Amino acid sequence: MASNIITISREYGSGGRTVGELVAKKLGLPLYDREVVNAMAEKCGFSRDFIEEVGEYASVSNSFLFSLAVTSQSDKNINMMSSADQLYACQTRYIRELAEKGPCVIVGRCADHILKNREDVFHAFIYADMDFRVNYMVENYQKDAKLMPKWLREKDNRRKVYYKHYTGETWGDPHNYDVCLNTASTGIETAADIIVKLVQG
Amino acid sequence: MASNIITISREYGSGGRTVGELVAKKLGLPLYDREVVNAMAEKCGFSRDFIEEVGEYASVSNSFLFSLAVTSQSDKNINMMSSADQLYACQTRYIRELAEKGPCVIVGRCADHILKNREDVFHAFIYADMDFRVNYMVENYQKDAKLMPKWLREKDNRRKVYYKHYTGETWGDPHNYDVCLNTASTGIETAADIIVKLVQG
Repeated sequence: MASNIITISREYGSGGRTVGELVAKKLGLPLYDREVVNAMAEKCGFSRDFIEEVGEYASVSNSFLFSLAVTSQSDKNINMMSSADQLYACQTRYIRELAEKGPCVIVGRCADHILKNREDVFHAFIYADMDFRVNYMVENYQKDAKLMPKWLREKDNRRKVYYKHYTGETWGDPHNYDVCLNTASTGIETAADIIVKLVQG
Repeated sequence: MASNIITISREYGSGGRTVGELVAKKLGLPLYDREVVNAMAEKCGFSRDFIEEVGEYASVSNSFLFSLAVTSQSDKNINMMSSADQLYACQTRYIRELAEKGPCVIVGRCADHILKNREDVFHAFIYADMDFRVNYMVENYQKDAKLMPKWLREKDNRRKVYYKHYTGETWGDPHNYDVCLNTASTGIETAADIIVKLVQG
């Protein structure tokens, strides 16, 4: 397949963001990750702290309103929703706009689900064994190795809850992706190379 | 990583068996699939029909006895188990023997779980979108396209139940594998090439 938009979903500590950076660099494409957060903060009026905390992790009550908001170009429904739902609606519309703008790499933010109906999008899931993730967090973020397994499992669980809540699907189910790569086995550079080769068709 | 034993777990209709054949051919390794079935039939005294039906699909009541049987070299516990449990115990011991014999490719039969504690084994999961699987079954096995989605979902469910029953884990969870490849996206030949490249390290 030849795709020009790539979404990277990833487990915390798997090196998935770095895979995204490498893919973007190798293909000469813009990378959207914290840039997405920053843009959303400006566009929707949320603070960056709120978006970083709620943007992928919130466990909130469901609302039918966000589906109206994300399919409509009007903001009139947004004001009736919870802040978390408003953020998801805003994020959805913004990610669709990014995809309309042209080829890019988008890391996280349910972009795989938001763009699932586009034929020109390649979806990768990056994950890793727990030992790899703990080492990655210790080496790259100076975290305490003893605390990491519990901390990472909590992150996973919150992402799963958030993803299920907004997409109705299971986060990390292979069927949502074109490939799933275990960086503990492939390495980060090779994972990026595999994605680049596949999207070039 | 450099591995010399490869397990291929696959969804029905994904072309996973063909991926296994290609990997075995490209690496010059023996392939175990129906050969495993045949050998087990001889070794444990089950009919081939029984093994093909029960070997990956049975939903049976749990038994602690098979764990004794598979860790013991004695057959004394096997006679106390259900036929399905006896088959799993026999299969487990036989797959471990195959791995001891040397480099090979093993398709299906919970080999990923049975060999999970060996460091020298590479695990791949081959899956595909439903449209691809239906077309694959129509083209390769002359099946009725209208009946296939329900038939394939039933196969998936039976495999999931069987896998959960004997391994305690979720069939198709990426964490059981080094890579998961969607052949509807990668194609069968490329999926095999990716595995070959990764196992060669």
